[in-house]
Formats: sequence, structure tokens, C-alpha cells
Amino acid sequence: MFPWKNIVSIDKNAPTPVYLQIVGAIIKEIMAGRLISGQKMPGTRYLSEQLDINRKTVVAAYDELMAQAWLDVTPSQGTFISQTLPIVRQRQWASGSIPSYQQLHTAAFSLSFLPSDGHQTEKKEMLRITDGSPDVRIAPMDNLYKRCREIASGRSRRQYLRYGDEQGEISLRKALAHFLHTTRGLSCSPQQLLITRGSQMGLYLIFQLLLKTGDYVIVGESSYPVANEVIRKFQGRLLTVPVDEQGLQVEVVASLCRQYPIRAMYITPHHHYPTTVTLSAERRVRLLGLAQQYRFAIVEDDYDYDFHYASSPLLPLISMDTQGVVIYIGSLTKCMAPALRNGYVVAPENVIQALTQYRKLIDRQGDLVLEKAMAAFIEAGELQRHLKKSLKIYRQRRDDFCTLLQQQLGEWIHFQVPDGGMAVWVVFASDIDLLALAKYAHTRGISLEGVQDWHRFQAIRLGFASLNAEEMQRGVEVLKEGITSFKRKLSRSA
Amino acid sequence: MFPWKNIVSIDKNAPTPVYLQIVGAIIKEIMAGRLISGQKMPGTRYLSEQLDINRKTVVAAYDELMAQAWLDVTPSQGTFISQTLPIVRQRQWASGSIPSYQQLHTAAFSLSFLPSDGHQTEKKEMLRITDGSPDVRIAPMDNLYKRCREIASGRSRRQYLRYGDEQGEISLRKALAHFLHTTRGLSCSPQQLLITRGSQMGLYLIFQLLLKTGDYVIVGESSYPVANEVIRKFQGRLLTVPVDEQGLQVEVVASLCRQYPIRAMYITPHHHYPTTVTLSAERRVRLLGLAQQYRFAIVEDDYDYDFHYASSPLLPLISMDTQGVVIYIGSLTKCMAPALRNGYVVAPENVIQALTQYRKLIDRQGDLVLEKAMAAFIEAGELQRHLKKSLKIYRQRRDDFCTLLQQQLGEWIHFQVPDGGMAVWVVFASDIDLLALAKYAHTRGISLEGVQDWHRFQAIRLGFASLNAEEMQRGVEVLKEGITSFKRKLSRSA
Repeated sequence: MFPWKNIVSIDKNAPTPVYLQIVGAIIKEIMAGRLISGQKMPGTRYLSEQLDINRKTVVAAYDELMAQAWLDVTPSQGTFISQTLPIVRQRQWASGSIPSYQQLHTAAFSLSFLPSDGHQTEKKEMLRITDGSPDVRIAPMDNLYKRCREIASGRSRRQYLRYGDEQGEISLRKALAHFLHTTRGLSCSPQQLLITRGSQMGLYLIFQLLLKTGDYVIVGESSYPVANEVIRKFQGRLLTVPVDEQGLQVEVVASLCRQYPIRAMYITPHHHYPTTVTLSAERRVRLLGLAQQYRFAIVEDDYDYDFHYASSPLLPLISMDTQGVVIYIGSLTKCMAPALRNGYVVAPENVIQALTQYRKLIDRQGDLVLEKAMAAFIEAGELQRHLKKSLKIYRQRRDDFCTLLQQQLGEWIHFQVPDGGMAVWVVFASDIDLLALAKYAHTRGISLEGVQDWHRFQAIRLGFASLNAEEMQRGVEVLKEGITSFKRKLSRSA
Repeated sequence: MFPWKNIVSIDKNAPTPVYLQIVGAIIKEIMAGRLISGQKMPGTRYLSEQLDINRKTVVAAYDELMAQAWLDVTPSQGTFISQTLPIVRQRQWASGSIPSYQQLHTAAFSLSFLPSDGHQTEKKEMLRITDGSPDVRIAPMDNLYKRCREIASGRSRRQYLRYGDEQGEISLRKALAHFLHTTRGLSCSPQQLLITRGSQMGLYLIFQLLLKTGDYVIVGESSYPVANEVIRKFQGRLLTVPVDEQGLQVEVVASLCRQYPIRAMYITPHHHYPTTVTLSAERRVRLLGLAQQYRFAIVEDDYDYDFHYASSPLLPLISMDTQGVVIYIGSLTKCMAPALRNGYVVAPENVIQALTQYRKLIDRQGDLVLEKAMAAFIEAGELQRHLKKSLKIYRQRRDDFCTLLQQQLGEWIHFQVPDGGMAVWVVFASDIDLLALAKYAHTRGISLEGVQDWHRFQAIRLGFASLNAEEMQRGVEVLKEGITSFKRKLSRSA
């Protein structure tokens, strides 16, 4: 007799109803070829006794299996495994448990792409002191979500809850156009704007549109690694250009233009990533001239334009572009909170239209409720007020952090006080092993995530904007402890 | 003298401060080669008189231009256009206005991809009666956004507002795993789940992972056009299989497997898109067997599993998959509201890991606040209660709609009452021009969006779930008027 008791394991506390547990177990047996077409099933009374459950439950399971055509009833003869089921494979009766989906670690079909570990976001509760993020504790999220709630239950809610504009909610595009005009001297139209999921989606869409296999793209020798990853993903070839105190060396760009057919260039002129230097005005003019002459696209990633502490900032490249060579990427994420995945792209209309078509295939449209809420937030001047407030806080934090760095680590580091942004580029003495330092810091609850990208410059991009006084102190203290303990070891072994 | 008055046009009501308007105008002149390196600028008094503004404003503009290194001051000689600015191009003085960014319709660099119109979402306020969407008016959005607000301002808010888990907020993956277990007999682990932006992103990621140029993918002869578009986008070759009353003809699949190396198959077994038929149990078994034998991936898009009105539904293919051949796409969008872009993919762990890597490049991560809110919503049983309520409403609407169709259009159409989902597949008499009908309906405020995809089957997929009694009546009435007016014309011309 069939070992029903071993095969149908019932867990009365499981969320799945018992009768469905039986259904699942029997289907699995059929699939595995252990119950075969035409085989007679036990009576419901017998099975209920075997399984020690109510007979009605077994009847319900059989009904379900008949509805699903796994079982047939032949009157006065009994219940049988359906004759019309083609048998997949008849197996030898094997001991051991039936594989359940939960144990499926590997697909049966082949995968050519095997994921690497990549940069994992810290899962543990660590204090991250690198890269520079906004402090989400001061972001007026409550106001924003209050608006979301009103929009999602208000009278016009249908408009924002169903399928809508793939280019982004029109009210947000209008509000942003106005915002860009007043803050960056950029007068674009809502038709020249695409709302994206953070600046990441902007990068992805733009290089997807621009690149064919083997196309040349110029980037800084140090640059935003994620941008390089996206460019490589779309089979672009990277050409790197040195970066100095005035930003990217534009004469090297000129010389590359003479040697290669350049398709595009990726640049963060406002504060070069990761070193934070600003591209000088004359280099900007020269760069625009080169792009116009050689007809390549400048992808201007202006991730932290809204944070400048000293004089007025240089306007973005796009504000001076009269020919249509610049594609501009911006982010509201950096203004508020990283999880708020709101970014945008500004470009000539035909570029925006093409990007929108690609975007539709990826996720169809953005979150219209959030987009509408953000529009109202900007219209009411709340984003601007928040930026003013953050600017004040971050400027103070920059000053405090730089003072602290100088006091505590002065003998082993050098850095320029940045005139904007959320991070300082700190170069360490050449005998300090930064990867080892990161490991040490990790044991003390401090994350130096990103150090893998920067240690070849013997530098770390330390972020100050998200750290309050106590957190700064703690972070710098741990760095100091790490460095002094290495130094002790070195002098001992010397 | 330089025609300053014509060049610097000042709008005191514009949002940009006046001094920045002057800065912008002067930079544009330099860029255009009309003001050249070394040229002397007028004194601030003269310019303020010319422009009829306060002198202080001009001083502010000059200060800004000096800070940006566009201007140099030579003591006791005056202010000059900077010597260090390389001149882009010296132009003949041309009349006509300077092109502003707003007028840039076309990029200066080439675009190989030119956007087609594609399926535009109706911008006008139309009543759409096709395809089948949930009724957002009954969705408990207020509850959901109330939770969002609590999460975004609550004590643990940092966790959800900063960079987080690219695979999706863990609490939602856990809640979904439980939900899938109880509703679909699918016991997957949170590691086998990826949260996406709607099922659209699932489709995009999966075919990006699976396909290399020229790979064969089997789809229904009628199928979800967006899936076909994604497959083509990744250079897959489509092989089509007829669909009958039992769903996809699996013996044709078998024969294709013998002829071609099949990489994947896209299928909506619960309700075939667009015809709504259910794939029979025996075909399911056969299909899984073929996938196991030939090692291809079955992409199971289970977009409307949660809506079944008659007997229990067949479990999804993945619930029977013990080998790891099925990749399952689901959607919370269809349960609540289209704009709520929450979908998910279930697959073996190595597939999920690879998809997550791709996802990171596209938009880094999802909306963790919304994901956390949705998790709480499921944990509290609210999603389940909402589904129960919708099910009741939609069943009634299905019945009413089918009755109405039969009464009003019975002589020109035939259809099967669907046993689930949100739509009816309605085949029209062969002499009715469906594209003309759609045009007529459009003039009456009724949208038949999607008819382009279905008219070759002489059918329309009419959606009932989102229509209340009045809307149904109106929609069917307009169809009837359209048909009878054609008929009159036909009989007149005959």
C-alpha cells in the first residue's frame, strides 16, 4: 500500500488550509511519477484514518483535485488518477524527501550571467561615514506623505491611481521646470523633462539610448563607479582623463577627440565625483565647444548642485548649452532622502521622447501619487525651505567635521575644505593601509563602504552631511584608533 | 556701442532674480562669440541706465560673473571679458534671437533610436472600457498611505529612508511568501523573491537575464503585446503557438522543441491574455515536462490569479515545479491600483540574485517606505480583506456586464463568461470594422485602447472590473450606437 502517512505531511498550524496541503502533496506525487495515471486512489475514509484527520477534509481535497482534473471518478468503482494526464517521468521509488520549492537554489536552465557580490549595502546596523548622504532625520517626510495620503484619497484620486503619464506627472514637470529656472538659470520646458526613479534610472536610460557596442565614452580617471558600470553594461569603451584641482583636464579630452570618434562623456562638473573639485569656467566653455565641434553628448550628472556653501556656484553646463549637446541628470533624492527615488533628466525633446519609450518598457511609469505630492511640495516652497535649512546645517557640519579631521588626524591626512556638497576627499599618508583600516572600523561599528573604489588614490570620500556631532566624533575617533594601532605595530616590527 | 538694451531683456516678474538674468544674458553672448575675450565691459552706472535698473543689481551681476571667472578687473582700467576664456567660435553679428534651451527640440548628436508613437495612454478624460483594470475607487489607499506616513516619520524611519535592500524590503518579502503560500500553495522563501516596480519590471529583468541575440522564445499566437515587445528588445526570436479553449496548444510546443533550441516561453496560464481561457491541467503537466526535458525557462505571468469567481482555480505552474524551470511574475498592482507599482518575481535563488544585480543598475532599489507599508497591510490581513471585497464586487460586475452585452449586442457578438479576471474576450461579427468602431467610440468619450492589438482576431478585450453600473451602461450603449450606425450605412449602400 502507498505510504500515505509519509507522503502527506500535514501541519495544522501552517497557513495553508489542510485540504490544500493534501492537494499539493498528491500533485507532487503525480508530477514525480510516483502516482501514475489510472492508479486507484484510496477511499476518503481510509485516507482520513491514515492521516488522522476529519474525513470531510479529505473529501474537500478530492473535490479540488477533480475540479483540477487530476482525479477521475468512475461510478461504483472508485477514484483514479486521471487517464488524460501524460506522465512526465516514471521514477524508481526513492526514499528521501520530495524537493520542495523552498529548497530550489539553482535553476534547471542555464544562466550565462552569474552575479558577483558587488557592492552590498550594509545589512547590519552600522554608522556609515563615507560618500555623503543627506540626513534623513531632518527631511520633512511627514509633510510629503501627508500630501500623498490626501492625493490618494482625494476627489481627483482616480487620475493618480490608474495608468498615467510615462514621462512623469505633468504638475511635477512644471514645478521642476520652474525650480530649475530659479536655482540654475536653466529655462527648460516640461516637454524637455523626464521624471525618473532616482538619478540611477537617468544614467541607465541615457546610456542605453546612446551606446552601441564599442562606442567610446570619456570619463574621469576617478569617476562615479556606478556610471562606469552602466557604460560597460551597454558595451561602451571607457577612455579616462586625469582630474586636477580645476576638474577634468579638458585638453586631454581635446586630444582624445582627435584620436577617437567620441560618442559621449560623463561628467560631474559641479563637484567632481569623488574628489569634489569644481570644473573651472574656462574648461566648461572649452568642453562645450569640443562637444559642439565633435558632436558628442555630454552627460552632466549634477547630483549635488543644491548644496553650495561659499560664493554662488557656477551654473551647470546645460544652462550655457545653446546647441543641444548636454543631457542633464538631477536628483531630488539628495535633497530629501535616498529612499525617495525621484530624479529627472533634462534634454532636447527628441532625446526625452526616446528615453520615455525605453522607460515604458522598464517600469511603465513612476509613482504618480508621490510625483503629484512632490509637485505640490515644490509649488508651496517647502522643498526650497528645506534646502535652505539643510544648507545651514550641512555648512556647520562641514566646518565642524573639517576642524575635527584636522585636529585628530592632521598629521596623517590632507584635504581641501569643499565649497559644497556632502563629502570631503581625504588623502591619507602613503603607509596607511586603507582596506585594513576599513576592516578595523567595521569591527567598531563604523562603515567605510566605498573604500574599495578609492583606496587606489590612497583616499577616502568621507561624508559629513548625515552625521550629527556625536556621530562625527565617534567616526573620527575610530579612524584615529585604527591608524595609531597600525603605527604601533609598524614601529614594533621595525 | 553694444546694443545692451536688446540683448539683456529683463523681466522683473520672472522667478529668476534680475541680477541672474543679466549674468545669463552676458554668458550667452560670450558663448555665442559676440562678446569676445579681452573686450571691455561698460561701467555699472552706464549699464544700469541703459537697462533702467538699480546700479546695485548690475554690481551684483558683475560680482557673480567675476566669481565665475567670466570677467576680470584691471585696477583703474575697468572690467574686461576674461582673457583666459577660449573663444568657442566668433560669429558674424546676426540679427534674430539667441536660441534658448526651451526651443531645443533636437539634439546636436545623432540618435539611432527614433521613438514611435507606440501605445499612448489617453491624456484626455475618457472612459476606458477595455483590457480590465481594478477599480481604484474601492482600493483602501488611505489606509496604505496612512501607514506610509507613520513609517516615514516614525522612530525607525532612518531604516526606510536611506539606501536599503535592492531585493526589496525584507518584511514585504516575508509577508508575500506567506501570502503566496496560503493563496497559491506556493511555499517559497524570501530569498526566492524579488520585489519589482510592477510586473513590467519583472518582465524586463527576466528577459534581459535570459536572452542573447537570436534566442528562441515561445509565446501564444495571441499574447500580451508588451511581453513580445520586451522579448524583441532583447533580440529574442518569437515562435508563436495557437491558443484554443484549453489554452496554449502544448503539442505544438513539443514539436517546436524538437525543431529549435528553445530558451524560454512566456505564458499566462491562469487566464490566457487576451482571450481569458485557462490552461487545462493536463497541458500544464505536459508543459512542465517539456521544460524539464528541454531545459527551457517558463516565464509564468500570473497577473490576475487573485480574481476567480467560480470553483477553486488551478494552482500556478510554479506550485508544481520541483525542478526549477518556472520563473513566476506576480503583481499587487492588479489587486489595488495600477499606479501602485508593486510587483514581484519568484524563482530559484540564483535567478533572483542575478535579477537583483540587474535591478540595481536600473533604479538601485524600490520605494522602501511603500514596501514596508504594504508588508504591514498584508500582515494585518487588509489586502486579503480588500481582495475578498473586490472579488464580490467584480463577480457581480462580471454577471451584470455579460448580461448587458448579451441583451444589447447579442446578435453581433459571442463570448464565454470568464471564470475569473477582470475582462471578457468578445468576438464581433466579421462585418464590423473594429477600428472604425473605436474611432466612433472615441468621439463619444469612450476609449477602446488596445483594439489595435486585438482587431486581427476580430475581437475586443472588454474590461468590467473598473466599471460601475452607469459606466457599463454608457459603454455598451456607445458600442451599440456605433454598430447600428455602421449597419444602417451598410444596408443603405447595399
